[in-house]
Amino acid sequence: MLNIPDSPHPRIVIIGAGFAGFKIAKKLSRKKFQIVLIDKNNYHQFQPLFYQVAMAGLEPSSILYPLRKAFQKNKNVHIRVAEVQAINPLKKRILSSLGEIYYDKCIIATGVVTNFFGNESIEKFASPLKSITDALQLRNSILSDLENALMTTSYEERQGYIDIVIVGGGPTGVELAGALAEMKKYILPKDYPELNEKEVDIYLIQSGKCLLPGMSEMASGKALEFLEKLNVNVILDKRVTDFNGRYVKINDGTEIKAHKVIWAAGVRGESLEGIESNAITKSYRYLVDPTNKIIGYEHIYAIGDIAYMQTVEFPEGHPQVAQVAIQQAVNLANNFIKNQSKPFKYKDLGTLATIGRNKAVADLPKLKFYGFTAWVLWLIVHLRSLIGFKNKFFVMLNWVWNYITYDQSLRLIITTAKKNKEPVD
Amino acid sequence: MLNIPDSPHPRIVIIGAGFAGFKIAKKLSRKKFQIVLIDKNNYHQFQPLFYQVAMAGLEPSSILYPLRKAFQKNKNVHIRVAEVQAINPLKKRILSSLGEIYYDKCIIATGVVTNFFGNESIEKFASPLKSITDALQLRNSILSDLENALMTTSYEERQGYIDIVIVGGGPTGVELAGALAEMKKYILPKDYPELNEKEVDIYLIQSGKCLLPGMSEMASGKALEFLEKLNVNVILDKRVTDFNGRYVKINDGTEIKAHKVIWAAGVRGESLEGIESNAITKSYRYLVDPTNKIIGYEHIYAIGDIAYMQTVEFPEGHPQVAQVAIQQAVNLANNFIKNQSKPFKYKDLGTLATIGRNKAVADLPKLKFYGFTAWVLWLIVHLRSLIGFKNKFFVMLNWVWNYITYDQSLRLIITTAKKNKEPVD
Repeated sequence: MLNIPDSPHPRIVIIGAGFAGFKIAKKLSRKKFQIVLIDKNNYHQFQPLFYQVAMAGLEPSSILYPLRKAFQKNKNVHIRVAEVQAINPLKKRILSSLGEIYYDKCIIATGVVTNFFGNESIEKFASPLKSITDALQLRNSILSDLENALMTTSYEERQGYIDIVIVGGGPTGVELAGALAEMKKYILPKDYPELNEKEVDIYLIQSGKCLLPGMSEMASGKALEFLEKLNVNVILDKRVTDFNGRYVKINDGTEIKAHKVIWAAGVRGESLEGIESNAITKSYRYLVDPTNKIIGYEHIYAIGDIAYMQTVEFPEGHPQVAQVAIQQAVNLANNFIKNQSKPFKYKDLGTLATIGRNKAVADLPKLKFYGFTAWVLWLIVHLRSLIGFKNKFFVMLNWVWNYITYDQSLRLIITTAKKNKEPVD
Repeated sequence: MLNIPDSPHPRIVIIGAGFAGFKIAKKLSRKKFQIVLIDKNNYHQFQPLFYQVAMAGLEPSSILYPLRKAFQKNKNVHIRVAEVQAINPLKKRILSSLGEIYYDKCIIATGVVTNFFGNESIEKFASPLKSITDALQLRNSILSDLENALMTTSYEERQGYIDIVIVGGGPTGVELAGALAEMKKYILPKDYPELNEKEVDIYLIQSGKCLLPGMSEMASGKALEFLEKLNVNVILDKRVTDFNGRYVKINDGTEIKAHKVIWAAGVRGESLEGIESNAITKSYRYLVDPTNKIIGYEHIYAIGDIAYMQTVEFPEGHPQVAQVAIQQAVNLANNFIKNQSKPFKYKDLGTLATIGRNKAVADLPKLKFYGFTAWVLWLIVHLRSLIGFKNKFFVMLNWVWNYITYDQSLRLIITTAKKNKEPVD
């Protein structure tokens, strides 16, 4: 029983509080709807900065925002922390871990998960970076392995602990590689004088011919140049075919010894039970019409990364980025509020990626540039996009601090494994 | 193999990096010793503020300090993250989870753990607050239970989720009760408008006749008055005899329905294998002579909470507080540096406890007072004691923020349970 009070207004159930779900809940929160916002966490996550949490540069709390706090002033918004399992379009009901709930309209904004392309061994051993928990686990594992590396006198064994392989040359892979390279350069010699930082190898493996596919040729080229200057081993046009927790296999037959593989090579949706397969793409996203309504259904919509909308301009769907999610949320909210069916039109505001200190690439609609200016723009855009003044303020302070001291100071191995203590009633 | 390089200087192995271990490592770090500092975590913990982490007012990182960062400039300090299991006084060796190590002098500064006085059911179901992990688990469990409370229409069941019982009327229990009462007053009505905050009962159960035993009568009285003003149910002179995860049993036969019991009712040591039982007290602390050397042993010392030193002034040992730990560390370090055996003499700087916003009690050697001035003093003393400018600065910012907004904004349920992915070599 989700225990939602009755309301004279139509009930809109939103599943997922990422960029898309959070935005549409906000837009609808002061209108004549009852909003039920369901997420498996009690917070909104700012995904673009997960990698900085993993690199011990930011605290989780700086890039998360408690949902209850965000909607404190919106009495018609009901937040429930639950996992949604299935949808029944005929009865207009959703089945969740907390029970069933009726909807007048349902908006699926569940985002995407890491795609291991069916390789179970990679899925078991590689580290994804699609949640704050992933980020903290990665942070812990990098720091623990540096401790482990001190304990061995064998060069070969030490390589396994300290080398890191990143798979995927999109923004996540590139930004992570840059941050790792700087950690190696500025932090390792100070924190681990007993290790030889030159032994630390960082690999970035990209299946395509260039980094940052989707961005301009100049951006790709500069990203490569910046990373190579930071001594990252960028391997282009090669695929990782397997990883057993000890060795990474590449499709040209070579192997790299490493315990840690960060997998940023692809994403896929996770579709709910109850939606017919002809409305689902092969990467488990929902096929939606230009108003984000799922093909073949009334009252069920999908927005953000999980939605797949084919248009003349984007015959293979829109890029899976925050801007698309936010704009789809705004368009759909307006359609609900004004009772209209205006099709979604994506306005590309540009793409940015940073590669360590002072360096970034920027593809704006009318201007492409790189270097310090692009980096400052990257900082401003990310600060502006964070939710809440306190988060903006604390992230900025941390950035200023880290910039001045050349030091991320959060190198803490903290675990919160729950002790099992469910009593027998 | 702990893999510590050879050194021309005598090797001092310090076990534990709490107030005592951290301080003595710092004092000896620039002298002619080789220091091996072993802790099971890679950070120093500032215990007095655990309760604020549990109450979502501070981030873990604000009150932890990475050991490697603290000793970056001390090449003769070697940090190892390991659990120490036993000591062999004859061979002068320590056995840890990372292997054996030889010592010239060994300093045991392992602190104390929660004492459940042998009650396994309480140990299983109650929440301790003696580590940052405990604090985060408690935070998660309070927040999760508020979510659970929304899901039930039964008053009885809801009480179980929202009522909280704190056992132990020392500083931890008192400060926690005050913070919880303020959360109930300021946060609950805003974050959980669907709950009736008046249904939330906070109990503080103390076995003695007064709160804050060891402090002055005025401090005890004022603490009680402040807590009762905040609607905390303070129960004096009663003992909790059992807790099964659902009901708390009190020695007068009454029962309280609650899922959460915070156990701050006592501590005990955990002695290492290899020390004879006649050097160990019944609460597992080491009997030390006035120079902190463990009775009956050469070259093995104990400092801080784990040490039990009987003096004329303190026939039942010193209070187990940070000040004693720090002063013993300083005295022992000076003894080592100057090759002397000066006995330890405790200089009581006073005791402080805070009970929510603007309220605290202070027992200074020559002055006892309470209220706003005591509260400001509490803030200053705690800020000064934190290690590192950044921690001081961020804690202060958070306090200013929380004070102005009446809001702790870190109400995030984050877990970092590690997926088991050890490969078969």
